[in-house]
Amino acid sequence: MTEPLFIIPFWADLLGVGLGGVQGAMFASGFQGQRRLDLLGVAIIGILIGMGGGLIRDLMLGQPPATLQNNWYLVTAAGAALLGMLLAGLLNRAGPAIVGLDAVVIGMFGAFGTSKAVGLGLPVVPAVFIGVCAAVGGSVLRDVIMGLPVAIMHVGSLYAVAALLGCTAIVGLHALGVGMVIASVIGIAVTAVVRVLAVIFDLSLPEQRRLYRRKVAAETGAIPTVKP
Amino acid sequence: MTEPLFIIPFWADLLGVGLGGVQGAMFASGFQGQRRLDLLGVAIIGILIGMGGGLIRDLMLGQPPATLQNNWYLVTAAGAALLGMLLAGLLNRAGPAIVGLDAVVIGMFGAFGTSKAVGLGLPVVPAVFIGVCAAVGGSVLRDVIMGLPVAIMHVGSLYAVAALLGCTAIVGLHALGVGMVIASVIGIAVTAVVRVLAVIFDLSLPEQRRLYRRKVAAETGAIPTVKP
Amino acid sequence: MTEPLFIIPFWADLLGVGLGGVQGAMFASGFQGQRRLDLLGVAIIGILIGMGGGLIRDLMLGQPPATLQNNWYLVTAAGAALLGMLLAGLLNRAGPAIVGLDAVVIGMFGAFGTSKAVGLGLPVVPAVFIGVCAAVGGSVLRDVIMGLPVAIMHVGSLYAVAALLGCTAIVGLHALGVGMVIASVIGIAVTAVVRVLAVIFDLSLPEQRRLYRRKVAAETGAIPTVKP
Repeated sequence: MTEPLFIIPFWADLLGVGLGGVQGAMFASGFQGQRRLDLLGVAIIGILIGMGGGLIRDLMLGQPPATLQNNWYLVTAAGAALLGMLLAGLLNRAGPAIVGLDAVVIGMFGAFGTSKAVGLGLPVVPAVFIGVCAAVGGSVLRDVIMGLPVAIMHVGSLYAVAALLGCTAIVGLHALGVGMVIASVIGIAVTAVVRVLAVIFDLSLPEQRRLYRRKVAAETGAIPTVKP
Repeated sequence: MTEPLFIIPFWADLLGVGLGGVQGAMFASGFQGQRRLDLLGVAIIGILIGMGGGLIRDLMLGQPPATLQNNWYLVTAAGAALLGMLLAGLLNRAGPAIVGLDAVVIGMFGAFGTSKAVGLGLPVVPAVFIGVCAAVGGSVLRDVIMGLPVAIMHVGSLYAVAALLGCTAIVGLHALGVGMVIASVIGIAVTAVVRVLAVIFDLSLPEQRRLYRRKVAAETGAIPTVKP
Repeated sequence: MTEPLFIIPFWADLLGVGLGGVQGAMFASGFQGQRRLDLLGVAIIGILIGMGGGLIRDLMLGQPPATLQNNWYLVTAAGAALLGMLLAGLLNRAGPAIVGLDAVVIGMFGAFGTSKAVGLGLPVVPAVFIGVCAAVGGSVLRDVIMGLPVAIMHVGSLYAVAALLGCTAIVGLHALGVGMVIASVIGIAVTAVVRVLAVIFDLSLPEQRRLYRRKVAAETGAIPTVKP
């Protein structure tokens, strides 16, 4: 591969981390009463969402975590979280803009993960897998630490699927000879668009089914409600 | 160590991953109603159980995750999970066969972990520890992600203990000069037999006790039921 | 950097692991009834608390986990946990001594993390971050595995803040030219003192606030109780 690797631009990486931190703070602002968070808790959530996906990506790649080689990632994630906390009232009113930003951030984390994996010579399937883990890893860590049901595991709007499609687009375009920078930009766009459409149209994946239930349904013309 | 290392055969490794995926799907099929999983959720559970233990093993060994160097592990785990989902009704009726298969899979994950650790020159205690983590790691990850109580932490059938005995057998036999392949096969058998016997006879470890409670019990002839 | 690194003395490292193990057992002894732990569960909690922070530290540093290069760490952590279990009745009566010991252990884990990170050439912010993660990581893992709310995330006594101050003191003193050994001892003292004072005076961090709530409060002279 003599083609230059897709080096994640430092400003883009920091942007993703900062947007993740803001998002974390807005998430934290939803907790009231018994489960309310203190200032450190808000900063931790911001760091988890802003940097968690990148940490998981680098651990899976066997690389030293990029976000820990530099002072700015942690400062940006924690600072963005505390700023986001102060502005939560304002930001909550900017709902649609936030959904859009969030979708772009997921796309960026996914694209950085997949392109870094491809650059290190991993095969396409693990490269896509690492991209998806980088995209959703921060929010999984957040949910586990907060003791919440992990959002991506339950029927809902296509969060992980959006990342999966975007990362698949990147390796597909790269295999077709498209340069990694362009492939990554397209991948980010795919993820963001799928995610935003999923929110707008309230789409979800089909639930798990079993063959015999579908047969029964076909015969009787109805899905049985008994618990199998 | 001039003795050839126990190289995990690729087919055996994929077999373990695939069986783990099927198991994950059967586990996922138990969720109904509010907590039901979508197709991606089923695939994620399959990947967690099939590949989680190996990931934890390689992270602890400071090695790049073996299951991410190759397309087939992810394809096998996710494919097996989706197949298992379709066949869950059938498989649930094959209960005893599944318990046996499950026991062999735990034994395989444990043996691969311990033998890889020994091959990399780790001392015996960490080698056994890594084997046990590889054996139970996938199901711990599954429980954490699903928000369930972690099965191995509570009084129940000897899941982790079976892996502990099997992995200890491997390092013990290896120390006595037995080759790693034979030691590993015996270790897998030990784990599988202990696990199956534990299920059949509903065995469990003694619960935690305190010295003074035992003294009281010895004096009065009964275990006191008051919460200390 | 020609200055000799702060090499963590083996006895100090084992001491921290052992004290962590005892603490884990005392924690486990609080579980009765449905959630009671078996012997292996107690040993696992001891290993998580005694070794979890060090594992997280080494993963973040991209180093092979130090506690797995040697038989003694696991033996010490598990042995201390089982001993602690037998003596839990006794130890529970020694509450204040335990709080003090606990505070010193957190300080040690934090200092070892930060000094190892500095020794490997990491910038100061990630070095402090890794120290805090090493200090609180074991108890976070414990809470996640036990399905409990993660203690450091909620308003309470300054557990993570104590580690943050101690680790910050270390990099601050080191930047001023103080040798790493002396800086680490001071850092341990800072963490321990802050933690003990926080327990004695029942201190906590301010909760999250929003600018507009504070404005409303300033105008009306009261914090509004309505959920925003």
